[in-house]
Amino acid sequence: MEFKSSQILSKLATSDQHAENSPYFDGWKAYDNDPFHPTQNPHGVIQMGLAENQLSFDLIEEWIKKNPVASICTREGVDAFKDIAIFQDYHGLPEFRKAVAKFMGKVRGRRVTFDPDRVVMAGGATGANELIMFCLADPGDAFLVPSPYYPAFDRDLSWRTGVKLLPVACESSNNFQITLQALEEAYKNAQKANIKVKGLIMANPSNPLGTTMDKDTLKSLVTFINEKKIHLVCDEIYAATIFRAPNFISISEIIEEVECNRDLIHIVYSLSKDMGLPGFRVGIVYSYNDTVVNCGRKMSSFGLVSSQTQYLLASMLSDEEFIEMFLKESSKRLGNRHKIFTRGLVEGGIKCLESNAGLFCWMDLRPLLKETTFEGEMELWRVIINDVKLNVSPGSSFHCDEPGWFRVCFANMDDETMQIALRRIRTFVGERKEMDAQVNNKRWKKTLRLSFSSRMYYETSLSPHMIPSISTSSFTTCSCDLNIYLKVII
Amino acid sequence: MEFKSSQILSKLATSDQHAENSPYFDGWKAYDNDPFHPTQNPHGVIQMGLAENQLSFDLIEEWIKKNPVASICTREGVDAFKDIAIFQDYHGLPEFRKAVAKFMGKVRGRRVTFDPDRVVMAGGATGANELIMFCLADPGDAFLVPSPYYPAFDRDLSWRTGVKLLPVACESSNNFQITLQALEEAYKNAQKANIKVKGLIMANPSNPLGTTMDKDTLKSLVTFINEKKIHLVCDEIYAATIFRAPNFISISEIIEEVECNRDLIHIVYSLSKDMGLPGFRVGIVYSYNDTVVNCGRKMSSFGLVSSQTQYLLASMLSDEEFIEMFLKESSKRLGNRHKIFTRGLVEGGIKCLESNAGLFCWMDLRPLLKETTFEGEMELWRVIINDVKLNVSPGSSFHCDEPGWFRVCFANMDDETMQIALRRIRTFVGERKEMDAQVNNKRWKKTLRLSFSSRMYYETSLSPHMIPSISTSSFTTCSCDLNIYLKVII
Repeated sequence: MEFKSSQILSKLATSDQHAENSPYFDGWKAYDNDPFHPTQNPHGVIQMGLAENQLSFDLIEEWIKKNPVASICTREGVDAFKDIAIFQDYHGLPEFRKAVAKFMGKVRGRRVTFDPDRVVMAGGATGANELIMFCLADPGDAFLVPSPYYPAFDRDLSWRTGVKLLPVACESSNNFQITLQALEEAYKNAQKANIKVKGLIMANPSNPLGTTMDKDTLKSLVTFINEKKIHLVCDEIYAATIFRAPNFISISEIIEEVECNRDLIHIVYSLSKDMGLPGFRVGIVYSYNDTVVNCGRKMSSFGLVSSQTQYLLASMLSDEEFIEMFLKESSKRLGNRHKIFTRGLVEGGIKCLESNAGLFCWMDLRPLLKETTFEGEMELWRVIINDVKLNVSPGSSFHCDEPGWFRVCFANMDDETMQIALRRIRTFVGERKEMDAQVNNKRWKKTLRLSFSSRMYYETSLSPHMIPSISTSSFTTCSCDLNIYLKVII
Repeated sequence: MEFKSSQILSKLATSDQHAENSPYFDGWKAYDNDPFHPTQNPHGVIQMGLAENQLSFDLIEEWIKKNPVASICTREGVDAFKDIAIFQDYHGLPEFRKAVAKFMGKVRGRRVTFDPDRVVMAGGATGANELIMFCLADPGDAFLVPSPYYPAFDRDLSWRTGVKLLPVACESSNNFQITLQALEEAYKNAQKANIKVKGLIMANPSNPLGTTMDKDTLKSLVTFINEKKIHLVCDEIYAATIFRAPNFISISEIIEEVECNRDLIHIVYSLSKDMGLPGFRVGIVYSYNDTVVNCGRKMSSFGLVSSQTQYLLASMLSDEEFIEMFLKESSKRLGNRHKIFTRGLVEGGIKCLESNAGLFCWMDLRPLLKETTFEGEMELWRVIINDVKLNVSPGSSFHCDEPGWFRVCFANMDDETMQIALRRIRTFVGERKEMDAQVNNKRWKKTLRLSFSSRMYYETSLSPHMIPSISTSSFTTCSCDLNIYLKVII
């Protein structure tokens, strides 16, 4: 029986609006197909596209061993099993909300306090992002978002809600800082196009930039949204990843200083980055708007945190001494890692945007572009993933306005793997420069050796291991493009 | 600064479409305000509105004590902590999907097998229900649903998706079984009203009926949806609660026998009822449609099961011997509880719809109605919750077409509490009959004593404990109505 599935399914199911076709996600697939392993697959792809905080797990494991009563799945804690296994109140365990509120305050240097009754649970930051959009905007309404921005925002904020995202371009010329002028312009353009702007959403600390906003900028943003009577959603999921000055300033501190309608202010939070627990799916919406809190709680039903996990975290986050130590140590380790990694890049001649937070660097690879276009960027990206075997993420997938920038994550691997990654990058940059010189030389001589096959190039400059992974790669387009690319540069 | 929140928020946030204003949810609030406790609050409200399976927790607790390595939060299992804490692949842990697929087959008597690659994760059945609607229907499209049906379907299936639910009335005259005639009629009416029907969704075993569908009915439903080229979504979350003959027949068995387009068949599953673990938020969509599986997986991002929980359950569900024993024992305990409970009701003169599954009975209180209307039903419900202090759920909240039916849950309490509940019911029915006789007597004599205040009635017929709980009750409307009601019946 023949049947066109597109007729019977929803538009969501039959369109590509989920935005998971970008290189950001493709890079993950490349990694999955050929993951690096120090002994079993030393020539595999190193995953540098994943913003994970893996540097402080030993601390959490130690805590767990010392606190068996915090788990309902230990002899010491099993007496609580029944009550916790049936707990499905979408308000969340009171102890959990209390602990999260306290933790949020601590991460912000105790300069502000958070009310547990405003903590709304969601399924990770992904769920929290969608939840807040469902509360604030109707299908067709729009949110301004400074670009470059997190690639999955398109999925999280737009896909099922029907909310539009309007990028506000930030530029390298002023270190990608958002300007009021760009904001005003984007707002006006939307009005001209008859699009209802419901708010501004931004990540602070920024993903992918790894930078934080200064007080004046934050104040001006609050003034802007307050004047326009639109919402400000602050994604602060990297709040505890600050590893050097300047310190993080939360929007919760700003609204203590600037007069504004608090009904317009909302924070998205999570434990995925700051505690390094993305698998636990703890997403939080903290809203100063009562109606949003009430409505958001009902929406919590769709993405409740497992009560087993709530219970464990309520206990862990309430351990003040441990949390104090963890935050300090985690920040220190991130700082060390950042320092070693960026130094390694500099040795290879690669600069990054100056940053003070996050689990990644915003790498400036413009000097390596064959042409200053997004095609040139994709070309370079394919070489990096297929030949250099590093999964980094091209700026275009972050909606960056300028080609040549790449996000590279540095906290989801051990020291040895990072060193291998650095070596690969340096070797690549070196070879590239040499090749460029050769090409220029040849161009100058105008002796184009068309008979020199790309295959030969492969076999001489790549390890044997890498050949099959390219030919069996899941992106046929990449392999093709790569062939074309190699032919061009030879 | 004055601000109308309705202007700045979404329609979802400012309307009441979340359907949580029904007596089904109000009853929970009444319980929360005054929860029964055998010693601390013996006159409190007994929760009989919650379909929880609490009879077999001891078995799970025993298993947990014997299997410390199944938890990442034990000394024995902590070595897996890091890998699991970062696991956030929306496909789910391979072992988890495999274990769930196997468990689903086992629950269906091993007559069918399930493919782990078709297991899509969601945040509880709530999330699974919404997910499948997002995949199958656009806003404004409709699904047929036999009534009475689960009250939160309105929230889960409709609220954020914009999908309409069209009830297909089932009647007590044939034990609330669905008829093809009613289905065809509902379908035609929708067409006349220019509503696009995208499918039929039904719970089998039924909530609130506690009954299962026979093979012929299931076959005719498959034929119906196949002819109309619409979807069939089977909510089978009570599959393992069968406690006596006839056995459960899954839709997965039927499509082996009836020719149909499998792209139209989808199952919603969960571990909340069958394993009694609602807090763990394990929802599953099992679809025979590849596009739905692919799209559904992307939607899993919004409601992933905590990897901590996936890990534990992967291990537990894979323990064949334990699961075999658990399913058998759980069914036996449910059967015993059902037998004792329904016998107790019969002694009080209350009949229930004959059932073989579920965690509840569908109680026929029509003889107790003052008038055979939904107002009469609500009147009776308020007395039961405010005076008798039992939270049962009125049929109207299940969209039942006939007034006088109530769902009463029997598996979320211990034996003693159940006996107290039964005593309260029997006392109430006895008093009610006596009162009815008096009223009739008085009416006959036409001596209406208007001076006899309702307050006096309270103080003489209710325990002192109950008075404040009525006056401080959160539903002022209920208290008012109750006063009116009392005045009427005196």
